[in-house]
Parts: sequence; C-alpha cells; structure tokens
Amino acid sequence: MRSKLNQCNKIVIVGAGFIGVELSDELKKTGKEIILIEKLPHILGLCFDEEISIKAEQVLTENGVILKTGTGVKELSGEKKVNKVLLEDGEVIDTDAVVLSMGYEPNTELANESGISTSKQGCIKVDEYMRTESPDIFAVGDCAQKHDFITRKACCTMLASTACAEARIAGINLFKLSAIKTFSGTISIFSTMIGDTAFGVAGVTETQAKKEGFDIITGVFEGIDKHPGTLAGAKKQLVKLIVGKESNVILGGEVIGGSSVGELTNIIGIIIQNRMNINSILTSQIGTHPLLTASPAGYPLLKAASNAASKTIFNHIS
Amino acid sequence: MRSKLNQCNKIVIVGAGFIGVELSDELKKTGKEIILIEKLPHILGLCFDEEISIKAEQVLTENGVILKTGTGVKELSGEKKVNKVLLEDGEVIDTDAVVLSMGYEPNTELANESGISTSKQGCIKVDEYMRTESPDIFAVGDCAQKHDFITRKACCTMLASTACAEARIAGINLFKLSAIKTFSGTISIFSTMIGDTAFGVAGVTETQAKKEGFDIITGVFEGIDKHPGTLAGAKKQLVKLIVGKESNVILGGEVIGGSSVGELTNIIGIIIQNRMNINSILTSQIGTHPLLTASPAGYPLLKAASNAASKTIFNHIS
Repeated sequence: MRSKLNQCNKIVIVGAGFIGVELSDELKKTGKEIILIEKLPHILGLCFDEEISIKAEQVLTENGVILKTGTGVKELSGEKKVNKVLLEDGEVIDTDAVVLSMGYEPNTELANESGISTSKQGCIKVDEYMRTESPDIFAVGDCAQKHDFITRKACCTMLASTACAEARIAGINLFKLSAIKTFSGTISIFSTMIGDTAFGVAGVTETQAKKEGFDIITGVFEGIDKHPGTLAGAKKQLVKLIVGKESNVILGGEVIGGSSVGELTNIIGIIIQNRMNINSILTSQIGTHPLLTASPAGYPLLKAASNAASKTIFNHIS
Repeated sequence: MRSKLNQCNKIVIVGAGFIGVELSDELKKTGKEIILIEKLPHILGLCFDEEISIKAEQVLTENGVILKTGTGVKELSGEKKVNKVLLEDGEVIDTDAVVLSMGYEPNTELANESGISTSKQGCIKVDEYMRTESPDIFAVGDCAQKHDFITRKACCTMLASTACAEARIAGINLFKLSAIKTFSGTISIFSTMIGDTAFGVAGVTETQAKKEGFDIITGVFEGIDKHPGTLAGAKKQLVKLIVGKESNVILGGEVIGGSSVGELTNIIGIIIQNRMNINSILTSQIGTHPLLTASPAGYPLLKAASNAASKTIFNHIS
C-alpha cells in the first residue's frame, strides 16, 4: 500500500475515524494532496465531543489536509483503477487513489462454524472470564462481545489495548477461574496524534453520556503541559471531565496536549475504573516537574475537577 | 545567582538530591566543569532504590558531570570568596564557585511566635483538615506536619505538588469542615529529568519499605515508550513496583523513561492512593498509541504487575 501511494500525488481518504485521520496526517507529511471525506459533521465524531473534534480539525487543516465533512461518498468510478469520487453533495473529485477507512466488523466465522453463539451485534458471546458459551473456549479481541463499563450496554470498542486487557483476563482464568480476576466492562480509552498535538479520551464523552440518559456536569480547564509555560516545547493542555451529577463519579474525560497526553488519558482511565469522584480527585496528590507536567497550581486534571465541583456546589441554584 | 555562575568555569555543587542533580545537569549544558559532591553512596540516594540511582548516575556522568559520592565536605575556604573545597576523604578541589543544595527546614517562626504547636520534627502540627491546634488557623506546605500515606508515620516530604494538595484540602475546609474532604496522608511523588532521561517515584521504594518492616515483593519490567521501538525518539521505559506480599497492594513504584514519565508516575500515584492491588491493575484497561505510549502487549506498568504476580503465586515454594 505504501509503495503504491508513494506514486500518487493526490489521495482521497474516506472515513475520518482514527485510522483515516492518522493516515491523512502521515501521508500529508510526505507532501501529497490529501482530501479526507467524513459523513458525520466532524472528524473523529464518534470519539470526541464536538468542540474537541473541531480542535482536531483545526490542527489537521493547518497541516494542509483538505476536509470534506457532512457528506458521504456516492460512487467511486474509473477504468482499470478508481480515479473519480462522487460525493453525496454532487461534488466530483479527481484522484490518483482512494483509501477506505470506514470501520470493521468482528470476524466470527470460526465461532459460527463451531456452533458458538454470537450476539445481535455479531460478536462472540463471552462472560466476565472471557469464556464463550462453550466453557473450554475463550474469546478475546475484536471478535468478542463487549459490555461498556459505564453504560453497562453492549458496545463495539475495537482496540489493541482492549484486546490485550481481555487477553490478560482470559490468560489468568485459563486453567482455573478466579472470581477476583474478572473483566468489569470495557472502557473506551485511546489517544491519537495529529502533527504534534495529541488527543485522548477515556470513558464516555458528554454527548454519549447525555444520549444514554446520564444527568451530568462537566469540568473543563486549559493550562500548559510544562511550567513555566515559556519552556521550549510547552503545549497547551486541555482536560474536560464528564461527571455524574448525583454521584459526582467521573464517567469520562477528554484531553488535548503534547506527548504526555497518552499517559494523562491513562490516569483518567484509572480514575474511572476506580469509580473515583470529584472529592477523591481533589484530595489526591499528583507529582509535577517543570519539564514533564503542568504546574502543581495549574494542573488541568485537578483544575477541571475543581471546575466541576463549583457546578455541583451551586447546582441547587442553577 | 545565574549571572554570577555565568562568569565561572568550574563549579562545585554540594548535595545530590533533586536540586543538586538538576542544577548540575543544567549548568553542564552551558559547557562548564561541574563537580557534584554527595555524602551518601549514590546520588538521589534518599529518593530511589540503588539500581535506579545508579542509572541516574550513568546519565549524569555521560553528560559530563563529575561525581564524587560517599564523601562529604569538611571545609570551604578562600579569601573574600570560596575557592577551595576540602572533602572528608582528604581531596582538595579548586573551584570558582560552590552551590549548597543540602536540604531545607520548615520555617515555623510565625507559628512559634503565635503559640501554635510544632512537632518533634519542627513542623506545625495539623489535623487531616490541615487545621493547626488553633482551630481558625490552617497550615499547609513545607512548614506543615506530614504523615506518610503508606508508613503512617511523620515524614518530611517538601514538594510544591504536596503543598498544593494540602492547600486544596485547606481551601475546601476553610468555611465549614467536610468529612469527605480530608487529607489521607502524604505520598512521596515526584519526577526529575537528567538530559533527556526522566526518573519518577511514587510511594515507598523497596529500600524504604523493607526498612519500615513491610514484607514485600517487587515487579520489574523494561520496555520501550513508543511502539514499534524503532520510532524516532523512542526511549527505554522501566517500571518497578513495590507490592505488599500479603495484601498484594501497591505500595510504591519507580519509573525511568522519556517525556511521559511525569504522568506515568502520576498513574502509579493514583493506583497507590486507591489502594489498588496487583489483580486490579492486571484487570484494568489502559489506552495505547504508537507515538505516545508503550505497546499494549508490552506496557511496562502492566508487565511489572505481572512480574510481581508471578512471584506471589509461587511464593509458597520460594
């Protein structure tokens, strides 16, 4: 694929999930003309809240990628190879190549042939030990059924890190089951990088939480990922927390920043999986260092929790 | 201080805690001859286990700093200004300047004058709301008494991030106390950077845990902080966990790596403060990204937990 794309000057990429966005960014770095098509109103639209997606769009377009959002692809055409893309809005784009990054489905062929049950969503049914309905057979990874840690509903998170977490559970239960080593539900947790700006999410977004019926508040803070912010390589760092209004428990978080975003997202993941609430975050200790983190007085995760706390205290007024 | 040191070619720094080590590293970058003196056998000897300190020494000496460990300073001499350092081992070092980075003591003058009690260690006595014995007066920061989260004993952790954590507690209890917003004990949590290698620690080290009488096991894993490891800027990442042998609860962790070490250390901090055990780590999900984290199959924090788990399972044999 890489050697074929090297010979192209103009490439259309269809689908602006992580794969489409990262591929656009990487191919743009090689100097090609890149057009990214997304049917949803915004790129990464299933992953992040709108305002975070818009920031990702800004970085991507500043780097030179051309975005066409809110329109799908109606037809790919050409002789011998595709060289035209007809969009749903009527626009026709000439191109040297088209890359489809439009998602994937679980491969359950082997399970189906073996008589192992699959779910309505087409995933292999598993319990919290990752056992299929056939007790000597375990299933993990993209083919295995998932239940969301927060919504407690079936979900379709397909991530290498999720697959590895499930594999750990299966591994430690292979020879004998252990009731303290079960899988308590899938959390969406991932990060991506566009140019030198990283974006991360753990748990549910504000949009997802509201859609599921959670009564929530949010807390947001933007700071700098080193201190003082004048240090070389310092990047803005934004943290948004999604918090249950009654429980004050953290349901999700989104992050924008520099190279520390991957592990910062993992902090939020651990917070969610421990069902920590705003108070337990505000009374926690974090470590800071000028070159490695935000300042202790302006650490965005704590400040976002503090911002959410201010809404809780006054929510009887609003 | 900076303008004076700029005029010096050779500088002796006394005390190889964080301040002395970071100052040595920064001054070395400006091309000066730097000699760092430490009375303990290793630099950062109170912060890290010996093998981590030795790695820090390797980075520092590769960067050109001259180390003299295991010997203290007997005498500083000179006319008008210091220009000779006599070490306890008899060596005499000529120098253009000496920087003392030998620690600090709480300033409790105001408290003493006000009749507010101080502890045996010379810190202002405070309760878990950060109140002094005078109920309308709160104390936070380096001057305030601390209790270690793990050892439950008085400790002298003096960090900006600890001060800010205490300030949050004091702030939210200033007008009325809240029983769910108390300080549950100080954890040592900090990171440092020498050249482009970062070192972090949270909770107790193996040395400290054994000294306090904890029966512990450790788990260690070294991986790479991006994946694949051939990516530009990838650094080795080492995680060492200190784990209670009976409880399997995480008591501490040490980290070596690149720019993600600050937040990775904070993950371990949150793990400790939630009293997570090996199982709860192994059944947790983390997010990964090629440019931002280790690989999902070789994530050092999980692998270190796994390494510790293997020792637990077989500890009836050993």
